[in-house]
Amino acid sequence: MTAEVLVNDRLKLAQDKARVLQEALPWMTRWAGQTLVVKYGGNALARTPLDRSEGGRPEDGETNTALTPTDTGPGEDPSFARDIALLHSVGVRVVVVHGGGPQISQLADRLGLETAFVDGRRVTDAPTLQAVQMALLGQVNPMLVRMISDAGAPAVGVAGTDSSQVIAVQHDPRMGFVGRVDHVDPQLLDQMLDSGRIPVMATLCSTADGQTVNVNADEVAGAVAQALGADKLIYLTNVAGLYENFGTPDSTLLSEVGVGRLRQMIADDELVTGMIPKVASIVAALDGGVPQAHLLDGRIEHAILLEIFTDSGIGTMILPEPAP
Amino acid sequence: MTAEVLVNDRLKLAQDKARVLQEALPWMTRWAGQTLVVKYGGNALARTPLDRSEGGRPEDGETNTALTPTDTGPGEDPSFARDIALLHSVGVRVVVVHGGGPQISQLADRLGLETAFVDGRRVTDAPTLQAVQMALLGQVNPMLVRMISDAGAPAVGVAGTDSSQVIAVQHDPRMGFVGRVDHVDPQLLDQMLDSGRIPVMATLCSTADGQTVNVNADEVAGAVAQALGADKLIYLTNVAGLYENFGTPDSTLLSEVGVGRLRQMIADDELVTGMIPKVASIVAALDGGVPQAHLLDGRIEHAILLEIFTDSGIGTMILPEPAP
Amino acid sequence: MTAEVLVNDRLKLAQDKARVLQEALPWMTRWAGQTLVVKYGGNALARTPLDRSEGGRPEDGETNTALTPTDTGPGEDPSFARDIALLHSVGVRVVVVHGGGPQISQLADRLGLETAFVDGRRVTDAPTLQAVQMALLGQVNPMLVRMISDAGAPAVGVAGTDSSQVIAVQHDPRMGFVGRVDHVDPQLLDQMLDSGRIPVMATLCSTADGQTVNVNADEVAGAVAQALGADKLIYLTNVAGLYENFGTPDSTLLSEVGVGRLRQMIADDELVTGMIPKVASIVAALDGGVPQAHLLDGRIEHAILLEIFTDSGIGTMILPEPAP
Amino acid sequence: MTAEVLVNDRLKLAQDKARVLQEALPWMTRWAGQTLVVKYGGNALARTPLDRSEGGRPEDGETNTALTPTDTGPGEDPSFARDIALLHSVGVRVVVVHGGGPQISQLADRLGLETAFVDGRRVTDAPTLQAVQMALLGQVNPMLVRMISDAGAPAVGVAGTDSSQVIAVQHDPRMGFVGRVDHVDPQLLDQMLDSGRIPVMATLCSTADGQTVNVNADEVAGAVAQALGADKLIYLTNVAGLYENFGTPDSTLLSEVGVGRLRQMIADDELVTGMIPKVASIVAALDGGVPQAHLLDGRIEHAILLEIFTDSGIGTMILPEPAP
Amino acid sequence: MTAEVLVNDRLKLAQDKARVLQEALPWMTRWAGQTLVVKYGGNALARTPLDRSEGGRPEDGETNTALTPTDTGPGEDPSFARDIALLHSVGVRVVVVHGGGPQISQLADRLGLETAFVDGRRVTDAPTLQAVQMALLGQVNPMLVRMISDAGAPAVGVAGTDSSQVIAVQHDPRMGFVGRVDHVDPQLLDQMLDSGRIPVMATLCSTADGQTVNVNADEVAGAVAQALGADKLIYLTNVAGLYENFGTPDSTLLSEVGVGRLRQMIADDELVTGMIPKVASIVAALDGGVPQAHLLDGRIEHAILLEIFTDSGIGTMILPEPAP
Amino acid sequence: MTAEVLVNDRLKLAQDKARVLQEALPWMTRWAGQTLVVKYGGNALARTPLDRSEGGRPEDGETNTALTPTDTGPGEDPSFARDIALLHSVGVRVVVVHGGGPQISQLADRLGLETAFVDGRRVTDAPTLQAVQMALLGQVNPMLVRMISDAGAPAVGVAGTDSSQVIAVQHDPRMGFVGRVDHVDPQLLDQMLDSGRIPVMATLCSTADGQTVNVNADEVAGAVAQALGADKLIYLTNVAGLYENFGTPDSTLLSEVGVGRLRQMIADDELVTGMIPKVASIVAALDGGVPQAHLLDGRIEHAILLEIFTDSGIGTMILPEPAP
Repeated sequence: MTAEVLVNDRLKLAQDKARVLQEALPWMTRWAGQTLVVKYGGNALARTPLDRSEGGRPEDGETNTALTPTDTGPGEDPSFARDIALLHSVGVRVVVVHGGGPQISQLADRLGLETAFVDGRRVTDAPTLQAVQMALLGQVNPMLVRMISDAGAPAVGVAGTDSSQVIAVQHDPRMGFVGRVDHVDPQLLDQMLDSGRIPVMATLCSTADGQTVNVNADEVAGAVAQALGADKLIYLTNVAGLYENFGTPDSTLLSEVGVGRLRQMIADDELVTGMIPKVASIVAALDGGVPQAHLLDGRIEHAILLEIFTDSGIGTMILPEPAP
Repeated sequence: MTAEVLVNDRLKLAQDKARVLQEALPWMTRWAGQTLVVKYGGNALARTPLDRSEGGRPEDGETNTALTPTDTGPGEDPSFARDIALLHSVGVRVVVVHGGGPQISQLADRLGLETAFVDGRRVTDAPTLQAVQMALLGQVNPMLVRMISDAGAPAVGVAGTDSSQVIAVQHDPRMGFVGRVDHVDPQLLDQMLDSGRIPVMATLCSTADGQTVNVNADEVAGAVAQALGADKLIYLTNVAGLYENFGTPDSTLLSEVGVGRLRQMIADDELVTGMIPKVASIVAALDGGVPQAHLLDGRIEHAILLEIFTDSGIGTMILPEPAP
Repeated sequence: MTAEVLVNDRLKLAQDKARVLQEALPWMTRWAGQTLVVKYGGNALARTPLDRSEGGRPEDGETNTALTPTDTGPGEDPSFARDIALLHSVGVRVVVVHGGGPQISQLADRLGLETAFVDGRRVTDAPTLQAVQMALLGQVNPMLVRMISDAGAPAVGVAGTDSSQVIAVQHDPRMGFVGRVDHVDPQLLDQMLDSGRIPVMATLCSTADGQTVNVNADEVAGAVAQALGADKLIYLTNVAGLYENFGTPDSTLLSEVGVGRLRQMIADDELVTGMIPKVASIVAALDGGVPQAHLLDGRIEHAILLEIFTDSGIGTMILPEPAP
Repeated sequence: MTAEVLVNDRLKLAQDKARVLQEALPWMTRWAGQTLVVKYGGNALARTPLDRSEGGRPEDGETNTALTPTDTGPGEDPSFARDIALLHSVGVRVVVVHGGGPQISQLADRLGLETAFVDGRRVTDAPTLQAVQMALLGQVNPMLVRMISDAGAPAVGVAGTDSSQVIAVQHDPRMGFVGRVDHVDPQLLDQMLDSGRIPVMATLCSTADGQTVNVNADEVAGAVAQALGADKLIYLTNVAGLYENFGTPDSTLLSEVGVGRLRQMIADDELVTGMIPKVASIVAALDGGVPQAHLLDGRIEHAILLEIFTDSGIGTMILPEPAP
Repeated sequence: MTAEVLVNDRLKLAQDKARVLQEALPWMTRWAGQTLVVKYGGNALARTPLDRSEGGRPEDGETNTALTPTDTGPGEDPSFARDIALLHSVGVRVVVVHGGGPQISQLADRLGLETAFVDGRRVTDAPTLQAVQMALLGQVNPMLVRMISDAGAPAVGVAGTDSSQVIAVQHDPRMGFVGRVDHVDPQLLDQMLDSGRIPVMATLCSTADGQTVNVNADEVAGAVAQALGADKLIYLTNVAGLYENFGTPDSTLLSEVGVGRLRQMIADDELVTGMIPKVASIVAALDGGVPQAHLLDGRIEHAILLEIFTDSGIGTMILPEPAP
Repeated sequence: MTAEVLVNDRLKLAQDKARVLQEALPWMTRWAGQTLVVKYGGNALARTPLDRSEGGRPEDGETNTALTPTDTGPGEDPSFARDIALLHSVGVRVVVVHGGGPQISQLADRLGLETAFVDGRRVTDAPTLQAVQMALLGQVNPMLVRMISDAGAPAVGVAGTDSSQVIAVQHDPRMGFVGRVDHVDPQLLDQMLDSGRIPVMATLCSTADGQTVNVNADEVAGAVAQALGADKLIYLTNVAGLYENFGTPDSTLLSEVGVGRLRQMIADDELVTGMIPKVASIVAALDGGVPQAHLLDGRIEHAILLEIFTDSGIGTMILPEPAP
């Protein structure tokens, strides 16, 4: 009948949980009201209803390289959506930018689209662009919106073409309907963030004369972060981070690195193909005022949460000034 | 050298145009700031890059009925997008709701999906739902957004699932992932309209427990109009309007009709199948406070503009009180 | 009974009108939200109920010069008011600034006011100032407000003295109660424009110590345009525009001219008296940041509409940089 | 050198003034943020520059009656303008509504307008309406705006026709362009009050089809007070207030009276002609929710200030419920 | 070097914490934006620098009753402040209302104030009121503000007398300067909550004529909750909750009870003295629209957090409708 | 019965008062919307209920110097509160900052606190800090709030510790819990001023790591004025102002002085101890952008009102530029 009676095992367990919440409090305070752009790869979503027969295919420019020494099979990642929802609950303004390489490849296969090549690179002709739209807007984007909604947060699917918010240029007409970001108008995203929503962006963009083109999602994420004045830019990928002396016995994961070192890596051709757009986009975003970027291994459960709410130090953080 | 010299043919032509603008002025004043929901069928967009080989297929519940005595081949309709942009320019708040029956059917064929039937009606199983998403979100929606953007107005693609703004119930589990509208939260649409954008909505909706379902676009349009407190609800279809004594020699197009007569048509089973969801949605919307609805023939160029800015009297207007 | 039946002559005519609206769409989009200051002369309104007996008198500094080779009789101009209303309907922020020379002269005559002269110029003594107020505030201003209101737009009469929004200095005390603009506080006009109204301004202004003075309407229009950060400044007058070699057989209407050429015209004394305040005000406004000004012949019906919504190229456009 | 030295006569005088300010404090607190509509007659402004030769003429329906036993010569009243400015300074929202009977009569005389009569009442034909506009908008209104501006407060001249804010009906077409108030749209006045300005309203109003008509200023003041939800309605006139047994030896000034007694006075024909529109407007305004009205003698210096900031009890206060 | 390497013990521990955060997510979503009023007793703060020599004294009306079978020594409670800060971090709008019985008693002792009694109850005379102000405003309130600030949240000390936000009546003049709540103006609290602050309220209140009086903190908390339209009202006390058959061998803690049962307890005199103001305030608050109240044992660490973010079910919840 | 009858003595007296209000009008207009920070010393409030036995004690750093030749007994000063309320009524934004030296000393005596000394200066140890809090937050602050509230204005008590709005540093740890201002976050004060309240600030402040310290009220007032961008900073003290040749037969009160002269006074050690913090704070505030400061004798009734609303020229005004 006394209070001591209540201090039973169940209460102790509950109090343990309360203590964890308390430990997270300073981080919640730190990040509330901050803007976070997360680039999410299409790999993790590869096992969709249309994708039962085989393992996930590598997303373009991400996994068919020697950079990915592990062979973790990608799969559904509800922890990602729930982490995004948790960040939203504590007042973080989150934008998700996604690609969808595996889904595009699968769909092109199923539709029997023949692929043209120029200089060995796949050309995005009109039927392929149609498949890109169906894969990104019709598969990956609604699945992410649904997953985040299921986790309790108001996600809204958007495309770079909505309100022509991401304007691109077709950098090489021979490659077809692919482009590079020219500039981003952050107004629509800002309005959504201001009214407490989570924009989930597919990377179809518009050229100045109204043509739809596909743009690399790493690049869009960096440009969006810069246009929004984001406080952090996170790339979820399937590698542990950046390495010093990658591919040698002395290979070491870099936990923090300055943007100058990244410039050098690009100049010295140290990066595997799939990392180049990520690293170049990070360099551009940090040059454009984003104060920090992070390369995280999306295969680790709750990777974002660990990065934001603990100092467990997974992945590689990139800062504007060279780390000492 | 005198002003008379300027009054040449070119000037006269320009002044004729100025007079037309002046004639439209009272209508612009009348509709500025008003909210308009337009339901646009998928037929008009059927000739997409994936759709080269044959004529457009009938959208579900629209054309495989005796109601459509004409056999106009559907095709691209840039005048629709430009009319929407013009309405936007003069301050009308426009929401476009679209279906995409032909595109869904085509894609299901191309993907080789086998169709299950219950009581003779097609079941929307998981692979079919996937095809619906790809057709609506990956084909029709971005094409409408692009066309309206090309016409100079800031269109934004949305789905009923965004921010769970349209909540549906699965009315018959045997039919799979299709639903009926339960309620609409107009906040996201209102914010977009307030900031001068044109939402273009695909009719994928969420159930209360997070399942995505497809809902008839006629029904969604009516429910959205009611939730927004819209001033007018327009269905663009491929018939001239509603007829008295349809199918008889005395068949007469009704230019204005009260909602009571519509109720009677439903009760007396006077309507062909494809018109039932439209008419039922109009009855529900008018009962819910929408002051007028319109059935227009979308095959007539500038049909919406004619209806809004002239009194040429095309189509059938439905009013809350029975017409005398 | 088919849709084809509807495609009759009436429909074709309506569709022709719809096409004209569509042609105007890019211009509507271009000018929506822009601010336009229009200076309207008192000539066009000269046939007021008090002005039945004779033809309109020339407005001060506008028509008793050799610049006006035509002898067009001024009269009521409802097309002006309807054009202003149309601009308002499509989202243009319009301010009308007007003078009223003919009305002032007429009223002074009727009141039997004797005119004093200094250096051959008429002195605005106290009784004359009273007549100016009655003519501008009691005749011209309410007539313009009524005409624009009749055309369906919410016009509001204002004076430079309201809230002391236009502060003037008495430049030559011997000339009596006339002044030059010192500065303009745009807040009241901005609030009216923000709430969707059309301010119609009479050019009575206040000195710093509270004296009411009359100011040349051309000058007020330019100063108001500059203070509002207007996007365009239009002078409606009764000449076709500016001429090269005016008064010679080689006289040519300039369709576009740089502000430098205007400075030269003033320096070289090329202008007839009545054009000097217009041209000087345009130079000042363009120097103050207004990006373009236009001299239009107000006697051409729908002159403003032609200038804003077509590229028929009537009148003379003046740009900050010299035209090539 | 001590503080006592400072306590000299000058300081004492200043402290006396400070005490007066302190006495007014509760009244300032009471009225801050409240809305006050003041009807100001044209008599007080009759000695304008056009009006030098003779004494002020009686305003229509105000002084050519036996109600005004005193023969105070009207004249300029700067204390009125300064009182309005003081009320504005302490946060009262003030609207001034004015007539201008003497100015209209004078101007009609000067312009040699012949007066038509119907049933012995003067007809407002088109030339007379023109004279009304010139007298009200061109003389009285700008003079009041200037006087209040000189007293340091931001006055703005408005007319009932601006933005068609006061809609009237022509009650008797034989009487010409005079009307009765139909309804008032308070939005423009509210915006001006919200941005800290003092609207000064001339009583030209619009009919529904755009005709300008003159309306009795007493009636407009009451209708404006009701539409604004004003907290007090004041009529400044040239009588001391309402009397019991007026015109008899027992005549007594009523310092407070209920609206019921006013109704009775109208029914029993106790009022002289000039008071009828005032009393009828007060009855209508109080019935419409205005909580109190006041009839004050405008010839008493600082009459409004005394009424608002002291309880000296001048004039007659009218309350919704009959005074006991 | 692989991701597996990272999945070490440290990572596992971090992921355990992430899972706890995830478990709390639905509760965060549930309570974000909701308003919570917490009444905090003075006991827990009794060990202040002035209070070193002995154990905490019972707060008035809380512990000198048989209701408190346990003898837990009160002490500093940093977990309370950190829980409040955590609630704030996740978007809960929190108001803290506190008393300070022990601190008042101690200070009165130290100041050697003699206590007068009326009917056996202590009288709050002027020196005692001074001591109450010093204890509440000078000790308890700043300590709570500091503790919550230390926990990272922006606390602001307020009193019921600030802006006269809590108006009280002196219910029994013989008792001196104590009162009962008459009404609460929630505007100041709402503004603070809207700008993201945590008001911490001491229960000094004002009478209508400006006298400061002390009011029972339980009563103030209930009235504030009602005025704010709070979503939950929590009393932190030093008992486990409400009991059925209190004081008998069958005594049972009620985990949920309807307000009807509370009414009965008051009517049947079942409550010990100290619980009466709490229970009466809860009844009034629930009658006034507060949807739920909670009696919690403040001696349990993280008691509020457990109640809000888990369903561990400590204490007694009171609901408007009788629990079945 | 005529209006003349009303012009009796009572009316004349009322009109005299109206004229005083009119004289104050330009000053009201001048100061409306301006921000004023007033530092009020604790002396004037020394006769509190706890303080009956003896005369008021000197506030720290104010009166135990030769600067105060007069021996005016301090006492309650309701005129101060009413002046603050009057300023508020006419739209001045007022912040009151107060100390409380006499109250602190008295309370420390009554609590029998022993005072430690370092270098001859009193040390603020923990028990003394507690007494400071009780004196400032529990006595002086609520008394000022009550007095201003009684005068009809919405005062709100605040401390520098609220929302950590004044951050201080402990300048000499040996002196205990006293500090110097580091910086002020004006947001909370601005919000209160924006919503029409009068913040009354006690000078308890927070260090960056959460320790409460006491700070000299003169210094806090200056720092708050600077952070708010105040238009005027007033120190109410018990001297007539600053003197030239203080303490000599040539002593002359300075009615206006430049900040340069103040710098020289500090450098030349011309000031008595108690004036140093005031003068140094004024120098800092004027350097930080406050355009004028004033030293007034708070013993003169209505001192602030005289300074703000008349040009009687009491006290010393300090301006950024040296007075000529």
